[in-house]
Amino acid sequence: MKETLTKTIGILGGGQLGKMLFEAGSPLNLNYVFLEKTADCPAGLINKNQIIGDLNDADKVYELAAKADVVSYEIEHVNTNALLKLEQEGKLIIPKPSVLQTIQDKGLQKAFYDANGVATLPFVLCTTENLAEKVNEWPDDAFVLKHRTGGYDGKGVQVLNKAQFKKLVDNKDSSIQNPSGFVIEKYLDNVTEVSVIVAIGQSGDCIAYEPCEMVFDPKSNLMDYLIAPSHLAEAIQQNCKDIALRVVKSFNSAGLFAVELFVDEQNAVFVNEIAPRPHNSGHHTIESCITSQYEQLNRILLGLPLGDTRLINAAITCNIVGPENVQGAYYIDNLEEIMKLSGVYIHMYGKTTTSPFRKLGHFTVINETQEDAIAIMKKAKDLLVIKSK
Amino acid sequence: MKETLTKTIGILGGGQLGKMLFEAGSPLNLNYVFLEKTADCPAGLINKNQIIGDLNDADKVYELAAKADVVSYEIEHVNTNALLKLEQEGKLIIPKPSVLQTIQDKGLQKAFYDANGVATLPFVLCTTENLAEKVNEWPDDAFVLKHRTGGYDGKGVQVLNKAQFKKLVDNKDSSIQNPSGFVIEKYLDNVTEVSVIVAIGQSGDCIAYEPCEMVFDPKSNLMDYLIAPSHLAEAIQQNCKDIALRVVKSFNSAGLFAVELFVDEQNAVFVNEIAPRPHNSGHHTIESCITSQYEQLNRILLGLPLGDTRLINAAITCNIVGPENVQGAYYIDNLEEIMKLSGVYIHMYGKTTTSPFRKLGHFTVINETQEDAIAIMKKAKDLLVIKSK
Repeated sequence: MKETLTKTIGILGGGQLGKMLFEAGSPLNLNYVFLEKTADCPAGLINKNQIIGDLNDADKVYELAAKADVVSYEIEHVNTNALLKLEQEGKLIIPKPSVLQTIQDKGLQKAFYDANGVATLPFVLCTTENLAEKVNEWPDDAFVLKHRTGGYDGKGVQVLNKAQFKKLVDNKDSSIQNPSGFVIEKYLDNVTEVSVIVAIGQSGDCIAYEPCEMVFDPKSNLMDYLIAPSHLAEAIQQNCKDIALRVVKSFNSAGLFAVELFVDEQNAVFVNEIAPRPHNSGHHTIESCITSQYEQLNRILLGLPLGDTRLINAAITCNIVGPENVQGAYYIDNLEEIMKLSGVYIHMYGKTTTSPFRKLGHFTVINETQEDAIAIMKKAKDLLVIKSK
Repeated sequence: MKETLTKTIGILGGGQLGKMLFEAGSPLNLNYVFLEKTADCPAGLINKNQIIGDLNDADKVYELAAKADVVSYEIEHVNTNALLKLEQEGKLIIPKPSVLQTIQDKGLQKAFYDANGVATLPFVLCTTENLAEKVNEWPDDAFVLKHRTGGYDGKGVQVLNKAQFKKLVDNKDSSIQNPSGFVIEKYLDNVTEVSVIVAIGQSGDCIAYEPCEMVFDPKSNLMDYLIAPSHLAEAIQQNCKDIALRVVKSFNSAGLFAVELFVDEQNAVFVNEIAPRPHNSGHHTIESCITSQYEQLNRILLGLPLGDTRLINAAITCNIVGPENVQGAYYIDNLEEIMKLSGVYIHMYGKTTTSPFRKLGHFTVINETQEDAIAIMKKAKDLLVIKSK
């Protein structure tokens, strides 16, 4: 116990999630080492201890582990085999690399839900070779087509109908060529997308955050904004939390997880995807909850008790993404006007250049009432414009 | 406006206040450079850009200013003449060095209150030479003896009666030898000590935080804990805020100020001292207010609008100070038990060694009700023990 706060946390990935993890640990002077390709990555800008290297380079993963008492990751696209080997050698990896194996492959992920009795939308797995045939057999006209691996932030996922799919085939579109194969999934219209952050401590204690509701931008397929608490009835929210806890517990691993759920018009709940790390849908917890998702992960990694997840303010988070027509160095226009609004917290990730739909930052609005939070968010959203320098 | 967030903030001093200023600016990736004697100072531990040097070394102050767009300070004991010269040369120094001149000298500070019609406790100024004579003439038996300059955190301030003073004279005690002279001040029993943080923006806009109440440890003369909101009636709290705003405005300078006030049994309010920087009594604003004192100072330094100062949770802050019997490397005992309590936020300042009464950190408890916050604070206070490693 004497050494809890002097342990070093090793993180694969040095993006914004790593940066916010560092910020949550700074009040306790926690020690981090990040592995990331470039020194000017978001976490690298503030943390002094970085290993420059690729997340898929086993040697670099080992170099990170040698400097860390516990290893975690803030992105799924890492060298899982190296982590599995490290775990066998006795290194503490959280969440377990086996979780990553399941989650990295959307096909395995879906099969895992099935095997654990967790409701998930109907799906079929296929390869590049039999994709057209499986689409042909699919009972509905519309469907969701997902790459089994490599997708991220809306990339590798598309909603299609059969005519649109035929066009892609005719054009030999690269999006329907994928060595890891595909998941064809039922497309659900009028669905509410909900996310529940679940924390599992090293001693097996577990807790869920209040569900929050995501609103997506149809153009970029990125989250447009997020509302916590969600507008769903309390019983449905409780159902979401129960399902999220159940599915995460079946991983049998400590960690912080974001469980994305669909709630259909009959209030049936389906697990969509799980991220084994802090998540965009939990950014708001920094300002709205007793314990943020980042502080929670720090606690988990250090073997400390879990923190209270209570939501103490209504919260809305908007991503700040690069506009379609701006490239390169940028600044935030109307910053003064935005800063006049009450309870608006801007987080920028330190990315020096923008490109279309690039996540540059986010802002969270907190307020006593959700109505006021929404009104302020709308003002801030209208004002906040990313412009070329 | 394009460059607001890329400005560099230069801070004289790299202690815990600098560290927390950095932490408040990290979400926006603000740039800092700190001047401090040692590289392992609290701010130096996390910020990459530091100048190693003495705060009284004019050359070092100039070196800092050359790297900064705006200069501020997190401690009063700095080279004010260098700052005055820099200001004459056109450098933006916040608060103005003239404020520092007044505040560094408790004699000038008292005279300033008098001159500006601000109620302050009766006092008389004296030198080492005429101290005994002035004490002899003092109408009450008890009095407060303060060094005019150089005092800090309870050092250089003592409450005495005439017999105790005679003993110090007989022993030729060093505490009654001071080249800068002394303030003899009326000693007020049964006083409520209140602090109001006041923010003045570069455009002259100003706002006060809710008053918070300080409870001091009689042994160390350090703050034991702080409650926000204070228990005073609303009209008295409003009076405290009005007086704090009035006295700070009379400095005619942008900045963040902590105004320490005495409220006597008849509810008369007196200004005690002012600190032209973030203050121990404002630590709780990190978790309890819409805008923390640290974010507020960042806004002021960058010329941004002031943030909302509303208190959204009842808060209590306790300092974590080195116990009398522990010296050197240390750790926090019962950390696990403390982390189980809801809404307890521990801040450690990265000081590797402890000594009696050294400020090692603080913790803030927030809760919906003050009663619950007090109950949790007491548990945490009992549990939190600093032990030798």
